[in-house]
Amino acid sequence: MQLLPKGKKILALSGGVGGAKLALGLSHCLSAHQLTVVTNTADDFEHLGLSISPDLDTVMYTLAGINDQERGWGISGESWTNLAALERLGGDTWFQLGDQDLATHLIRTQLRTSGKSLSEATAYLCRQLGVSARVLPMSDDPVRTMVVTERGEIGFQQYFVKERCEPKVSGFRFAGVDVAAAHPEFLSLLRDESLAGVVICPSNPFVSVEPLLALNGVREALSKCHAPIIAVSPIVGGRAIKGPTAKMMQELSMPTSATAVAKYYGDVLDCFVLDDADASESYAIQAMGIDTLVTPTVMQSLQDRIELADQVIQYATCFARQDLVV
Amino acid sequence: MQLLPKGKKILALSGGVGGAKLALGLSHCLSAHQLTVVTNTADDFEHLGLSISPDLDTVMYTLAGINDQERGWGISGESWTNLAALERLGGDTWFQLGDQDLATHLIRTQLRTSGKSLSEATAYLCRQLGVSARVLPMSDDPVRTMVVTERGEIGFQQYFVKERCEPKVSGFRFAGVDVAAAHPEFLSLLRDESLAGVVICPSNPFVSVEPLLALNGVREALSKCHAPIIAVSPIVGGRAIKGPTAKMMQELSMPTSATAVAKYYGDVLDCFVLDDADASESYAIQAMGIDTLVTPTVMQSLQDRIELADQVIQYATCFARQDLVV
Repeated sequence: MQLLPKGKKILALSGGVGGAKLALGLSHCLSAHQLTVVTNTADDFEHLGLSISPDLDTVMYTLAGINDQERGWGISGESWTNLAALERLGGDTWFQLGDQDLATHLIRTQLRTSGKSLSEATAYLCRQLGVSARVLPMSDDPVRTMVVTERGEIGFQQYFVKERCEPKVSGFRFAGVDVAAAHPEFLSLLRDESLAGVVICPSNPFVSVEPLLALNGVREALSKCHAPIIAVSPIVGGRAIKGPTAKMMQELSMPTSATAVAKYYGDVLDCFVLDDADASESYAIQAMGIDTLVTPTVMQSLQDRIELADQVIQYATCFARQDLVV
Repeated sequence: MQLLPKGKKILALSGGVGGAKLALGLSHCLSAHQLTVVTNTADDFEHLGLSISPDLDTVMYTLAGINDQERGWGISGESWTNLAALERLGGDTWFQLGDQDLATHLIRTQLRTSGKSLSEATAYLCRQLGVSARVLPMSDDPVRTMVVTERGEIGFQQYFVKERCEPKVSGFRFAGVDVAAAHPEFLSLLRDESLAGVVICPSNPFVSVEPLLALNGVREALSKCHAPIIAVSPIVGGRAIKGPTAKMMQELSMPTSATAVAKYYGDVLDCFVLDDADASESYAIQAMGIDTLVTPTVMQSLQDRIELADQVIQYATCFARQDLVV
């Protein structure tokens, strides 16, 4: 399949599971050098002295075809012997590291300690896992999502894993984002004439995509980008496919609708892809000056992922940015 | 079994496997507060960013009853999923870390990074594993055995594991030993009136015991100690029960005999325990002014370990140091 002319490229912005699904679809529709996946790293944290990058790992494992699809995270066929031994030793076990997954964190930590950047460590891991698409952390500098809750501000993984997203959310703070530099390849790709589209994957808008957008220069580069910016709705039929997106929207007093997501992204977007189930919202979104594509967006099978990716790529190649036409 | 009067104590000096066997025997003959095992840490190293203390772990796992007796190191029922995943990622796999064992290194490293000493980390791990005897690293400061070989000087684990003890040895250097402090409890126990005996376990004299003896103040404290210093021969019938002791003796142009071990320890010793197989060497050792006990020393079963420990404790309680009698 060769949807996109040879010299053209797609940039996907991704969080974890939902984003990785579409990234996998894109990887099947594009040749390796045509796809760059810039991944959220504001979920990263240190655990047991290890540098853990959950979204990068999910994207990497998914593109390598070794992700656990049933569980939705980690590596398939994973075992938990180390976790049980950690428990026996009274270690922290609230963040579950599988025996295989642990190797990724050991290697990444070793590379980081030896002075390699997160993107260099990621490139190494991708090479070892046979991932040929370019997977980039949004930044080589630390940015950490702090969730503002009724119980005070807590780290993202504590909120997400330890507290099972239970605390009521009133906002987010991306610690370090004001001094972090967006990855240079991320910014240069946005200026690249070969770029055919920027795809904001169906990831959590608040904690997966917003940190990327909040990096210095990213919103400006997106607004100047000649390629269309296309978001795929993470909300279908008023519910999130996975994760706390809908719950967060409620707690932030937003309607849990595709329209509300499109509105949240606002000026950043040229195009919005929403599910057939939400077709009736299309007009409201168009009224915001955002073009829409209505298509099945729920990705259960690999074929679903590929078909959605195919739709998005076609959409990108057909769409011309209003402000750049004239 | 209560061999030793209640207030009396035994101090065992141990390397890995052989030493741990006798330490286990001792732990069966003594109540918890009567046994302190000071363990060699000159084999320690950093691997994959983890603080690894092979001899401490062997002693700890053995006393906890979770050691793998067939393999001779690590934890029984161990699995190797992480190692296979590390290999897939191109990580270092020459030092084999099992999934369970890895938890020990993660916890120890985490404790060390948070500012705990090696002895504090060891005490924590022992508590978690239900080890009630006092297990102490010989020092909280780093000492590293460098093996002087025909190929130059190499780290102990590289020599022992990576090079399988193949390079010909011409000597040893204990990097850091001149500035390392012997563990304060180690030195204070040697001055303690309640001490009934110091047992140098059947460990490698050159790389397991010598680093302990080479610490500042240890030889002096041993010479002033009122309790007898008893070594158990690691050489039986001209061969080492385990490990490269005999090979090293050959390469250092020493006879591979119990006598040569006794001679190597020399003035440090009051007593030497040698196997029935080497009974004929008893006179030569006595001629060096070292008392001898001839008894079965090969520890195959738990009962063997307990019987040898029993013999050694009885020997200690019966023997009075020549220089302190008068």
